Amino acid sequence: MTKQERAVRTRHALIRSAAQAFELHGYAQAKLADISARAGVSPGALHFHFESKAAVARTVESTAGVSLRRAAWLAQPPDTNALQRLANASHALAGLLRTDVVARAGFRLNCEAVSGGGLNLRQEWRGCVEQLLAEAAADGLLITRRASRADVVAAIVAATIGFEVLGRRDPEWLSHRTLTGFWRVVLPGLATPDALGDLDPGGTGIRPTRRETEGGVVQAELEATGAAPP
Amino acid sequence: MTKQERAVRTRHALIRSAAQAFELHGYAQAKLADISARAGVSPGALHFHFESKAAVARTVESTAGVSLRRAAWLAQPPDTNALQRLANASHALAGLLRTDVVARAGFRLNCEAVSGGGLNLRQEWRGCVEQLLAEAAADGLLITRRASRADVVAAIVAATIGFEVLGRRDPEWLSHRTLTGFWRVVLPGLATPDALGDLDPGGTGIRPTRRETEGGVVQAELEATGAAPP
Repeated sequence: MTKQERAVRTRHALIRSAAQAFELHGYAQAKLADISARAGVSPGALHFHFESKAAVARTVESTAGVSLRRAAWLAQPPDTNALQRLANASHALAGLLRTDVVARAGFRLNCEAVSGGGLNLRQEWRGCVEQLLAEAAADGLLITRRASRADVVAAIVAATIGFEVLGRRDPEWLSHRTLTGFWRVVLPGLATPDALGDLDPGGTGIRPTRRETEGGVVQAELEATGAAPP
Repeated sequence: MTKQERAVRTRHALIRSAAQAFELHGYAQAKLADISARAGVSPGALHFHFESKAAVARTVESTAGVSLRRAAWLAQPPDTNALQRLANASHALAGLLRTDVVARAGFRLNCEAVSGGGLNLRQEWRGCVEQLLAEAAADGLLITRRASRADVVAAIVAATIGFEVLGRRDPEWLSHRTLTGFWRVVLPGLATPDALGDLDPGGTGIRPTRRETEGGVVQAELEATGAAPP
């Protein structure tokens, strides 16, 4: 292993151990000494990679951002209609939040806006929901009813944020079963009868396994820190 | 004003000022000295009423619990069907969270489980949603479809928790307009066509104004602290 490979591994171990510490103790209470100890490195090694706790937190957030974007993207094969891609993306995000501590801690830190970076992952998700619903409307997949598109966006964003928050205590809220149930409730009120017949509330296409997810996270961290091309 | 009335007023001012401090700085960072100063009393007066920061937090939570239960209850006139009462209750809770700092801070503290009391307000809301949907099913108001009752409960609970969390930054998420839009999206997928015609997604009956809400909070605090009968 070259010196550079070792440095990348150490950095990755620190990001993961920071995510665990933030999740266990919260950002304010997490200690740098604990983060380096969990990663099996000296406090000096931590300071070589990160100048402060806020800097570690920003990296956990940006790594989470890259993983979440990739997961949402991979869940949207181009030959699938926009409503199905929306359901797929929500499954992918929930799956990653359920299985990956860096994605989970990074999303939460970002929501609490503690580290002062410019990233807004909730806003990105809202933008993704808006765009896919606009596409679904343009393709004639949506019922025109009393509810406006803005109402639909708000309902979906609120529910998915609710799943994330409730999932912090009880991972069942982020399970494939819960998300599938959500789309079973919501899709019949959104999709035209024709479109509805083709939609799978359980998602289609890529279903990341735990192993794939973890591989993705390593890659995401490398990208977020500039150590690998996207 | 008798000595006892003065004590009740001071206690109420302390609860309100604690709620403001918890909302501004978070529980961990809030200072008892700041709480007493905001309430215009001495640190000694605070210690006369509350033995610790956790004790103030528990009282903020229990006061919030009483206000939220009352608001949900008042929004459910007995001659209204169960689905309408569910929509009404959600409007009442959102309205209270939007306008009342004690309800808002108490709900949030309770979700973060910082003060170690036995109260679980999210669980209570979930129980309320479950009960009203069971009643709606028994009264034949619900479409029997692919979605199970548990799916519907989870979707409604997740969305309303999402509104609360998102509303911490942007009160528009707890507005009457946003909640009405949510029910416009969800009700057509839940209610039979017959029932749907009678439902108002904007809620019916009591709409607490800001003034009424504040009066309710004073009363709730008196009840939660045993100074007045419920």
